Amino acid sequence: MISAENPHKTASAQNLASPNHSDFQLVDYLTQRREVVEAALDKSIPVVYPEKIYEAMRYSLLAGGKRLRPILCIAACELAGGTIEMALPTACALEMIHTMSLIHDDLPAMDNDDFRRGKPTNHKKYGEDIAILAGDGLLAYAYEHVAIQTHQVPAERVLKVVARLGHAVAATGLVGGQVVDLESEGVEGITLSTLNFIHAHKTGALLEASVLSGAELAGADQQMRQRCSQYARNIGLAFQIVDDILDVTATSEKLGKTAGKDVEAQKATYPSLWGIPESQRQAQRLVEEAKAELAVYGEQAAPLMALADFITARKS
Amino acid sequence: MISAENPHKTASAQNLASPNHSDFQLVDYLTQRREVVEAALDKSIPVVYPEKIYEAMRYSLLAGGKRLRPILCIAACELAGGTIEMALPTACALEMIHTMSLIHDDLPAMDNDDFRRGKPTNHKKYGEDIAILAGDGLLAYAYEHVAIQTHQVPAERVLKVVARLGHAVAATGLVGGQVVDLESEGVEGITLSTLNFIHAHKTGALLEASVLSGAELAGADQQMRQRCSQYARNIGLAFQIVDDILDVTATSEKLGKTAGKDVEAQKATYPSLWGIPESQRQAQRLVEEAKAELAVYGEQAAPLMALADFITARKS
Repeated sequence: MISAENPHKTASAQNLASPNHSDFQLVDYLTQRREVVEAALDKSIPVVYPEKIYEAMRYSLLAGGKRLRPILCIAACELAGGTIEMALPTACALEMIHTMSLIHDDLPAMDNDDFRRGKPTNHKKYGEDIAILAGDGLLAYAYEHVAIQTHQVPAERVLKVVARLGHAVAATGLVGGQVVDLESEGVEGITLSTLNFIHAHKTGALLEASVLSGAELAGADQQMRQRCSQYARNIGLAFQIVDDILDVTATSEKLGKTAGKDVEAQKATYPSLWGIPESQRQAQRLVEEAKAELAVYGEQAAPLMALADFITARKS
Repeated sequence: MISAENPHKTASAQNLASPNHSDFQLVDYLTQRREVVEAALDKSIPVVYPEKIYEAMRYSLLAGGKRLRPILCIAACELAGGTIEMALPTACALEMIHTMSLIHDDLPAMDNDDFRRGKPTNHKKYGEDIAILAGDGLLAYAYEHVAIQTHQVPAERVLKVVARLGHAVAATGLVGGQVVDLESEGVEGITLSTLNFIHAHKTGALLEASVLSGAELAGADQQMRQRCSQYARNIGLAFQIVDDILDVTATSEKLGKTAGKDVEAQKATYPSLWGIPESQRQAQRLVEEAKAELAVYGEQAAPLMALADFITARKS
């Protein structure tokens, strides 16, 4: 499909290259979408009194990162015929939620990490009290942002997205995954099903919500939502397997956070269950299956296809 | 207005006494509404795997309390001609949010409280990690609950309520108030305007959201929303003044939490600025002004009027 056939998409383009051509370049796509997301995130939270809490939220929210969740949301919205503008508030909210989970996970009472993305963690910089509140603030603000800033989308759809984001964070999602992760630390003989539960909830739920909310905002039909859901589950698990592999093989400098933490904390990981070569094969298989789900949409699915490959190929 | 003139209200009554008669009995009204809220809260969060986090959320959510925010929400919805059912999911969400703020405020890195409502605080019972996650879970779940469970209300209105709840919690609301509260601890010469900022945000914002969201769910017009807003600001401040007075005058047993904490932590309070008699006069004045705002609605406003009196008369 070329953009002339889809005025809806053209109207949204904001001079960004259309993803719908056969010589699809992921790097350009990622760069362009990431710039849009960075600008929107920067605008989303101003600094007003009491400045410290706004600065603390911005410190972690604007600390870089791949912006994978926002870009997945935008790409899924575009796949379903929607525009970047329709997805952008939800894309920002996803990053706010993700940032909240990182700030709280890094706390001394949780994973007790001192560095994140090459910088001191939020509580090392602002203190534990402010870090807890910065997380709470980002989480609450995420919902407000979606509810207020989403335009050109029927309210019923936006409400579904609010519900989906809630479900992905609560005990049914990343909170539940983190609880089982904490309970499993140092426990011998964690089973594959427990490990899968942890990651399906701790990282998978929000990744799935990223893709599905993007598709929903654009009014994707049930078949597309199902395919997007399966795609997202696969890449979510592949993402975690690669994360576990990188914790063993990459340096702290490259990761921007302390490497080898999993081994040190006696965490069950895919490499500890399968070894590294088999973990790599499993990640690759999941990505292939994810791509197969979307093959029916042809070139329109090129960004999500390329994002799936990007996840297994990444080095940090 | 009698209920026969308002079939909408009658349909919602679920055998509860109508608030719209001249011999309005607050105790009955509170008891009946509280029972509805308790039952809904109990149903709202089931216990499934991983049980610990669901139990931790329920431990604090179902620990009793006045349920003031849910009841204000329901009463405002009824004032505007809405039903209990329309308000109930938002009423539960308000209590989830309030409970989250208590769990996080009690943490060692914040107010470091060991007791709340006569029971060990969440982190004393479940550990700090679970307490942080229980708060996060409740906050996220609140938005999901409103979005999924609210029926018979147009989606546009529900979205406004989601935005309002976000605004009341984020740095623009209770998170911002808590930050200034923490910054002010032990600081000499806190001004009245700083103290007012703290409470307008830390407790006032959510109380105002309780009343306004109830009114909005029922489609209140702008004049009613403005009156509800002023009513809520007044009772919010009165509530805090009474809280400060009780911290000085009541016993820990009566409060269900440690009394005298404010003095010990060198917190600025209204009694420390004004003395107790003047604080009592100010609270009374605020309540009278709150009631005057709603006088135009006659008997229909009886529950909110009586709730305003209840706030200054309470002993815990």
